[in-house]
Amino acid sequence: MASSPATAPRLTVSRRLRSTPFTERAMARGASAFTVYNRMLLPTVFESLEADYRHLISSVQVWDVGVERQVEIRGPDAARLVQWMTPRDIADVQVGRCCYLPLCDAHGKLVNDPVGLKLAEDRWWLSIADSDVELWADGLATGAGLDVMVFEPAVWPLAVQGPKAEELMSRVFGEAVRGIRFFRFERLPFEGHPLIVARSGWSKQGGFEIYVDDAAVGERLHDVLFEIGADLDVRAGCPNGIERIEGSLLSFGNDMDGEDSPIEAGLGRVLSLDADIASLSLPALRAERARGPVKRLAGIVVSEQPEDGALSPFGIGGWPLSEIRSQTFSPRAGTRIGIAMLESGLRDGSEVRVRRADGGEVDARVTPLPFTFD
Amino acid sequence: MASSPATAPRLTVSRRLRSTPFTERAMARGASAFTVYNRMLLPTVFESLEADYRHLISSVQVWDVGVERQVEIRGPDAARLVQWMTPRDIADVQVGRCCYLPLCDAHGKLVNDPVGLKLAEDRWWLSIADSDVELWADGLATGAGLDVMVFEPAVWPLAVQGPKAEELMSRVFGEAVRGIRFFRFERLPFEGHPLIVARSGWSKQGGFEIYVDDAAVGERLHDVLFEIGADLDVRAGCPNGIERIEGSLLSFGNDMDGEDSPIEAGLGRVLSLDADIASLSLPALRAERARGPVKRLAGIVVSEQPEDGALSPFGIGGWPLSEIRSQTFSPRAGTRIGIAMLESGLRDGSEVRVRRADGGEVDARVTPLPFTFD
Repeated sequence: MASSPATAPRLTVSRRLRSTPFTERAMARGASAFTVYNRMLLPTVFESLEADYRHLISSVQVWDVGVERQVEIRGPDAARLVQWMTPRDIADVQVGRCCYLPLCDAHGKLVNDPVGLKLAEDRWWLSIADSDVELWADGLATGAGLDVMVFEPAVWPLAVQGPKAEELMSRVFGEAVRGIRFFRFERLPFEGHPLIVARSGWSKQGGFEIYVDDAAVGERLHDVLFEIGADLDVRAGCPNGIERIEGSLLSFGNDMDGEDSPIEAGLGRVLSLDADIASLSLPALRAERARGPVKRLAGIVVSEQPEDGALSPFGIGGWPLSEIRSQTFSPRAGTRIGIAMLESGLRDGSEVRVRRADGGEVDARVTPLPFTFD
Repeated sequence: MASSPATAPRLTVSRRLRSTPFTERAMARGASAFTVYNRMLLPTVFESLEADYRHLISSVQVWDVGVERQVEIRGPDAARLVQWMTPRDIADVQVGRCCYLPLCDAHGKLVNDPVGLKLAEDRWWLSIADSDVELWADGLATGAGLDVMVFEPAVWPLAVQGPKAEELMSRVFGEAVRGIRFFRFERLPFEGHPLIVARSGWSKQGGFEIYVDDAAVGERLHDVLFEIGADLDVRAGCPNGIERIEGSLLSFGNDMDGEDSPIEAGLGRVLSLDADIASLSLPALRAERARGPVKRLAGIVVSEQPEDGALSPFGIGGWPLSEIRSQTFSPRAGTRIGIAMLESGLRDGSEVRVRRADGGEVDARVTPLPFTFD
């Protein structure tokens, strides 16, 4: 759960915590708090979490998500290496497609959960969450003697998210953007510079991610988006802690981490456990499936809550190993909701008592993910 | 360079940014700013950088350096894997010794610069700087089919640093701590619980690091250190941006990073480039030595400076690719000093013009590292 800006500690910035080409612009447009993601600054709040949320679900925002680093894997063994890292079958992925790719180690535990972009038959970008996939991929390739290059290109994604995103993007890139289907990308020119534009992004409000590969072009694009979208009330924004939990978008490191398997994280639907693929996590994941996972990700919805009190992450009545990993007050639910890693015996629909951070207790219900709202 | 707490942005804390067992205690004792290191919170300032500095060089401080994660490498191939990762010959390292181990990839570039602790012939801890060495080591071991386990144990180092550190430590662990020589470690009991205690730490003021492997024991130890050291004016502290730059202690990610080689970073003295060792970076580093490195780390000392103005990191008069990577006002030098990656042609003793962040320019001198003070 995001701490409120007023009580949050100060962040000491040094060279080690990299800025993006857009960091100064985000600060100038009112970013009031940041987090650190892949050793890089990511805005977390502008006006307030709830004000940002209400704007995001009604208009359009430009997000500096330069922290989504790209790990480029290029060469004759590129597809072999990517397939080795993920238990999802990538054989049928076409050039020009995005693909959610949980990466798992030999123990079947998550390493990261990037979106992969297939740029060419021998060239992938993994648009990563917060861990050094470049080092893992480099280690695997070096250890196995694969014929690939692994590196982090100078690319900083800029996201345009919200119900008016398509309108704003079409003014900049032309009507072609309207034809891009979800999780596909095309190269579209901005003032003569071709940029990869994907229909994707870490919200459920629709939108695009632009893979900026030139800082000066990106700064110009950033400014043009605000100029041309003034009548749409375009604002600077960022991934929103309320919207993403309501939308059940999982955050690696928060909702699941290197101690969890993709089965436990509820990602079974994207795995290819019965495929004949050379993926290093397949034996462990098949064994886990046969054995039955010991924990599982689910939703927690507080039944009634006069005040918006934060829940204690640890211990859910009678199930001490269950843990709330993200939580927020949800305007759609009218109450506090959370994403929790539960002991498998704790089933959907269960009524439970959940401790609050201030020491009290509240009634709550276990629900499936994604959350549904009446 | 550390930004001042008053103007630093707020940090949004979530589960992804892990606390240590000591984070709440550090906050209670006045930590006013943090950084994020290995996805964990590290205090950076208590009273002020300069007040913390003056106390550190005169008394004793307890530091929460739980962010120094341990990567444990254990098994029949442990020494083989460690040697593969570092171009420093580890054949003669004895059990009970610490050893500074730059880790380098096949291109001869730095991956991290941990202190290695040899716990047994088949068991090492790498006490790492800020990058996912666990993922790199796991990738190498998996790719090459080595017979090792690679994991991050639940260990949070607590440092006791400053001229009165030995006195404080002897009150807790007994006279045995006085016999521990620099970069050696022993297992000493605290209330019956054996803890690894090394004479080491990221300051030049002397001291110890205690590898806490039990959170409850660590919390108790933390409190005992403050109780028993009250008359020594023991205070909570943290690695200090002034002291470490004056002491020329390099910070991975700040002074050198994954784009630099250990030769460029001035670490040539610890490399074993002529040894007959199976280290994956040796060919690249030997080639670099033969060719001559194109850049090198050196000191920058401002010649006269009426006010303490921050220097611009980029461009040092006539040498546009030269970059200041860390800087501070130095009480010992009476002026601002910096650690810079310079074009190799810019020699020690050169007089240069250095831009200031506010647009002005100052005269400065290039000096060798470590800094020396009259």
